[in-house]
Amino acid sequence: MKSGKFITLEGIDGAGKSTQLDLLAALLQQKGLPVVVTREPGGTPLGEQLRTVLLDQSVTMHAETEALLMFAARREHLDKVIVPALNDGSWVISDRFTDASFAYQGGGRGLNWEKLALLEQWVQDTLQPDLTLYFDVPVELGQQRVSSVKTPDRFEQEQKNFFQRVRVAYLRRANQFPARIQVIDARQSVTAVSAAVQQALEKLIDVITDE
Amino acid sequence: MKSGKFITLEGIDGAGKSTQLDLLAALLQQKGLPVVVTREPGGTPLGEQLRTVLLDQSVTMHAETEALLMFAARREHLDKVIVPALNDGSWVISDRFTDASFAYQGGGRGLNWEKLALLEQWVQDTLQPDLTLYFDVPVELGQQRVSSVKTPDRFEQEQKNFFQRVRVAYLRRANQFPARIQVIDARQSVTAVSAAVQQALEKLIDVITDE
Ligand SMILES: Nc1ncnc2c1ncn2[C@@H]1O[C@H](COP(=O)(O)OP(=O)(O)O)[C@@H](O)[C@H]1O
Ligand SMILES: Nc1ncnc2c1ncn2[C@@H]1O[C@H](COP(=O)(O)OP(=O)(O)O)[C@@H](O)[C@H]1O
Ligand SMILES: [Mg+2]
Ligand SMILES: [Mg+2]
Repeated sequence: MKSGKFITLEGIDGAGKSTQLDLLAALLQQKGLPVVVTREPGGTPLGEQLRTVLLDQSVTMHAETEALLMFAARREHLDKVIVPALNDGSWVISDRFTDASFAYQGGGRGLNWEKLALLEQWVQDTLQPDLTLYFDVPVELGQQRVSSVKTPDRFEQEQKNFFQRVRVAYLRRANQFPARIQVIDARQSVTAVSAAVQQALEKLIDVITDE
Repeated sequence: MKSGKFITLEGIDGAGKSTQLDLLAALLQQKGLPVVVTREPGGTPLGEQLRTVLLDQSVTMHAETEALLMFAARREHLDKVIVPALNDGSWVISDRFTDASFAYQGGGRGLNWEKLALLEQWVQDTLQPDLTLYFDVPVELGQQRVSSVKTPDRFEQEQKNFFQRVRVAYLRRANQFPARIQVIDARQSVTAVSAAVQQALEKLIDVITDE
């Protein structure tokens, strides 16, 4: 069924995901490819409702509850947006996906890695992104980039060592799936990062053309 | 840790769960036992928020999303209400619990039984109710009892054969766990059903006293 390609962007806040997502979407459109842009948590009306709960600073919940809600939103996202778009031949770019659950709920909150893998399997079966761009930055740099007057959400209010654990978990995940996850040094300029994104994209297109 | 007992009440709408829950709680209180009464989906502030989404007629979602949300609410319910109360020595009575997920999401929606068992294990590990009272009634009788002007929720709006599948799944579950689940013929009068509940309770208390 699936004929489009699925690209996910990962990294802590301030890594440059949104910036690069716009550039990547424009690049694909220039190539005449149909693009669907989406995000997690969210991407569907129900998912956006759950996003509000998940990011609400006044809400407290067990880390396993948080993981189950993330995967509930993801199940819906796959069913209503991602899979139909891929079957239609669209390229789907998602601002965060399952690697974020391993990074935030696994690394950040300390949830058992194998328990998360069970949920991943439950919800995704064999579906995985064709390419994941992980924008790696030191926590301080990410925080400097996003420092603003915006009230922090339930994740943003966490301490620096939380985000250090998130970063380490992202790197662990990249190590586990080197063929899928490209680690990009996101300390570089927007232009340099974008060049690295473009290179990863061309490599993916080459693989498709070879198939 | 656990020193209280956990009793769950199950059955389709109109089976008499709420009626018997009140009588059972009063009976336990008469015996001088501390009682915590709760319900699913719900039981916590987050769980009640999820209940609103789950019962909202205008919301559509994949059956697997529904199951994940039910278990997310349950994870929170266990963490915030059920386990602390049991550790405190209270008797916890819940209006519905995991057997309802097998009945409604499994039987009603047709979700894979083994996939539900994976979530049960993920969320509960080895925790199970000490006693489950399943109030069995024909679908027509349950519907007659609750027929009113109330607008049906997302489950109540389902067709009769949906509830027949729910009932069959409840009976399948009772068959699978005969030591835990007592099937009570709930076509009988309130008094006769209550006598059956009391008998099941005395049996549970005998078992405890023997330990
Ligand atoms: N490579 C970069 N170098 C410097 N600043 C950047 C870079 N990429 C993004 N920014 C800036 O950092 C901030 C956060 O970037 P953003 O793309 O929103 O990150 P994210 O979506 O990962 O949180 C924005 O103000 C953006 O303009
Ligand atoms: N055994 C019974 N015989 C007749 N009516 C009953 C019986 N048990 C409950 N009812 C009535 O049926 C309706 C539904 O009962 P309720 O306890 O609310 O069921 P549930 O909570 O399972 O939906 C109520 O009006 C209740 O008074
Ligand atoms: Mg962003
Ligand atoms: Mg009731």
